[in-house]
Amino acid sequence: MPSFSKQIRVYFSPEKKLHDSLRNILGFYPGNISLYKLAFRHSSAAQQIKKGVKDSNERLEFLGDSVIGTVVADYLFKKFPYKDEGFLTKMRSKMVSRAKHNQIAVKLGLNNFIEANNDRFGTKPSSINGDAYEALIGAIYLDKGYKFAQKFILTRIINVHIDMDEVETKEVDFKSKFIEWAQKERKEFKFETLVDGTTVPDKQFVLQLTVDNEVVGTAQHISKKRAEQMIAEQACALLEI
Amino acid sequence: MPSFSKQIRVYFSPEKKLHDSLRNILGFYPGNISLYKLAFRHSSAAQQIKKGVKDSNERLEFLGDSVIGTVVADYLFKKFPYKDEGFLTKMRSKMVSRAKHNQIAVKLGLNNFIEANNDRFGTKPSSINGDAYEALIGAIYLDKGYKFAQKFILTRIINVHIDMDEVETKEVDFKSKFIEWAQKERKEFKFETLVDGTTVPDKQFVLQLTVDNEVVGTAQHISKKRAEQMIAEQACALLEI
Repeated sequence: MPSFSKQIRVYFSPEKKLHDSLRNILGFYPGNISLYKLAFRHSSAAQQIKKGVKDSNERLEFLGDSVIGTVVADYLFKKFPYKDEGFLTKMRSKMVSRAKHNQIAVKLGLNNFIEANNDRFGTKPSSINGDAYEALIGAIYLDKGYKFAQKFILTRIINVHIDMDEVETKEVDFKSKFIEWAQKERKEFKFETLVDGTTVPDKQFVLQLTVDNEVVGTAQHISKKRAEQMIAEQACALLEI
Repeated sequence: MPSFSKQIRVYFSPEKKLHDSLRNILGFYPGNISLYKLAFRHSSAAQQIKKGVKDSNERLEFLGDSVIGTVVADYLFKKFPYKDEGFLTKMRSKMVSRAKHNQIAVKLGLNNFIEANNDRFGTKPSSINGDAYEALIGAIYLDKGYKFAQKFILTRIINVHIDMDEVETKEVDFKSKFIEWAQKERKEFKFETLVDGTTVPDKQFVLQLTVDNEVVGTAQHISKKRAEQMIAEQACALLEI
C-alpha cells in the first residue's frame, strides 16, 4: 500500500521533526503538540477561526506572560528575603522586559520555529521573538502544569540566560534605549516641552514625545530629566522596544 | 506547675484561635501559621527587621497579586476559548481590581484579622483589606503550592464572590469613580486642560488631574472625554481607589 505509507510519511514527518527539535530545546517531549505549534504562530500567519479571534499565539502569550511573572516573583521572594516589595517589583520588571524576552527567545533558538507572514509587515518587529517565548511558556503551563513550567523557567532560563548581578546593578536608561531604537529604525522623533517648568509657579515640566508625529508619551515632573525618562519609558512600553 | 501551664495557655491560645478561625474561612488548616500571621500584618503595625525591610505583608502581597493574576488568566483562557487576548486582558483587570479585592476581603471576613496601628494613619485606607487578601494568597501559595492556591481562588473566590456576567457587561467609568472617591474623602481636585485640542493643528488635548494640588495623572488624546477617562484611571491606580 504505497499511497497509505506515503500519507503517513507526509502527515507525520513535519510533526515528528518539530517534536524532536522541541525536545532538544526544552529538555522534554511535548505532550499536546498542537499547543506548541500555536505558540509559534504569529498573528500575521494566523487564520480567523471565529468572528474576532484568530488561531495566533496571542492568547497563549497573555497566559504565559502571567506565568513567567509569577515564577519570577516567587524566585525573587525567596532569593531576596530581606528586600522590600519595591525592590522585588523593580527587579522583576527588568527580568521580564520586552528586550529580555526577545534575547531569551533568540538564545533558545525559538526564532527558527516562528510561523509568520512577512508580506504582512515591512520589517519584522523584534517583539515577535519575545512574544513566542511567552506563548511557549503558556503552552508548557497548559500541557504540563505550573510546577513543570516553573522548573523550566528556573533551570533553563533564569539559571542559564539571566545574569542576576547585571539585573541588580543595571539602571535602565530609557531615553538612550529609545533613541538607539529610533535611529536604528530611522524614525523621526521629538522630545517636546509643552510647559516650561521654570516659567510656572509650581515648577512642573510637561513633556511629550512624538515618533513620526504621533504622540507616544506625555509626562510631568519638576525635573525635566526625570520627565524625559518617564516619557521614554512610556514609549518603550508602547512600542515594545 | 501553674506558671508553666499559664505560659502554655498564653503562648498557644491566640495561635490556636487564629488556626481555627482560618480553618473556617479557608476550608483547610494552615500549615505554616507564621506565613498567615504575616499576611495580616499591615506595614503600620510592622517592625523593621533589617535596614530597609519590615515584617509587614507587603512582600507577600507582591507575590499573591501575581499568583491571582495567573490563576485568573488561566480561568479566563479556558472559559472564553473564542475571545482574543484584548478581551481576556480587560476582563482580568476588572476581576483583579483594587475595588474587587477590597470587596472580596470583606466578604471573607479578613478585615477582622488585620493587624494595623491606627495611630499611624488618620483614616484607615480601604486598600488595607484588598492588600491582606493578596498577601493571604501569597501565604497559601508558599504554604501549600500553586495548585492548592488555584483551587482556593476558583472555588472559594471566583465561583462564590464574582458575578462574571456583571464583570463582562460592566464598563468602568473611572471619572465617576474618581469623583465619588474625592467627594467622600473631601479632597480638592481639578481636571485641567493644559493644551486645548481645538486650537492646535494635530487636535490633541493635554489634560492633567490634580488632587490637593498634586498631579495624579496626565494624558493626551484627540477626544477630551477619553483623555479625562485616562487621567482618572491613572489616578485610581495611583491612589488605589
